Amino acid sequence: MNEGRPRSWARTLGMVAVLAVLLVGLNYAWQSWRRQQSDHRAAIQALLDAQVKAWNAGDLEGFMDGYWQSPELTFFSGPDIRHGWQETMERYRQRYQGEGKEMGQLTFSEIQIEQIDATHVWVRGRWQLVTSKGTPGGLFTLIIRRLPEGWRIVHDHTSN
Amino acid sequence: MNEGRPRSWARTLGMVAVLAVLLVGLNYAWQSWRRQQSDHRAAIQALLDAQVKAWNAGDLEGFMDGYWQSPELTFFSGPDIRHGWQETMERYRQRYQGEGKEMGQLTFSEIQIEQIDATHVWVRGRWQLVTSKGTPGGLFTLIIRRLPEGWRIVHDHTSN
Repeated sequence: MNEGRPRSWARTLGMVAVLAVLLVGLNYAWQSWRRQQSDHRAAIQALLDAQVKAWNAGDLEGFMDGYWQSPELTFFSGPDIRHGWQETMERYRQRYQGEGKEMGQLTFSEIQIEQIDATHVWVRGRWQLVTSKGTPGGLFTLIIRRLPEGWRIVHDHTSN
Repeated sequence: MNEGRPRSWARTLGMVAVLAVLLVGLNYAWQSWRRQQSDHRAAIQALLDAQVKAWNAGDLEGFMDGYWQSPELTFFSGPDIRHGWQETMERYRQRYQGEGKEMGQLTFSEIQIEQIDATHVWVRGRWQLVTSKGTPGGLFTLIIRRLPEGWRIVHDHTSN
């Protein structure tokens, strides 16, 4: 029976080594998951900040960069559904860049970013415009997905 | 060296047994995951159907069962935020059960149920009321979570 000892020692050492590697791997995964978690909120905030900055520079194309460039994008406002990036862009053009229209100065407030998983976030917030003719404003709900090209709004519901 | 053979045979058999158990377990997990996937859409549709049925029976409490009974529920309509189940309930009461108000007959259409993971779903759709005074209608976006008590709407954005 004694001749088995060195082997069982070796086996124990092997198991300890395997466990150590597993623990190091788990810790690494946990750390990157945590990093991912916090990075997401920062990335979403950056997306919203970039939209506001572009809008306030009169750069509608820059503002639209936050949206999924796909026919599957949906934009809900009042009782109207816009399907796709192009229709959404046209709505903004007609509403804010048409004859006698102006984009004004945009602010977002009361932003709540809710992370669902590594690729899905939803956002609640309030929007406010200051134009020479008034201060329209209201609420929005966004569904944001992490796509190969980055985080993009895949659905926007806006009301005022 | 030959004396090792029976042991290595035993070891091989043991590994095969472990692998077999792992495969059976994985298959079981995969099957239940698939079942869960399809069940979710049916559960969400059932939640929406139950809301419509309750509404059309004049049962506002039954309709409100679909919502998360929590102060963290949010209800966005136009420029107004209602915080919590109670405030949301009061809004419905004042709007549809006040003096000279009526609930009418509700229908949902253009429903799109998007499943994110085992506990999160979002829904797009159109609502329409038929009352003796008119036919108000519009769009909604719902965030629905699977809670210990079941699937519940945790955020509702409605516009008309």
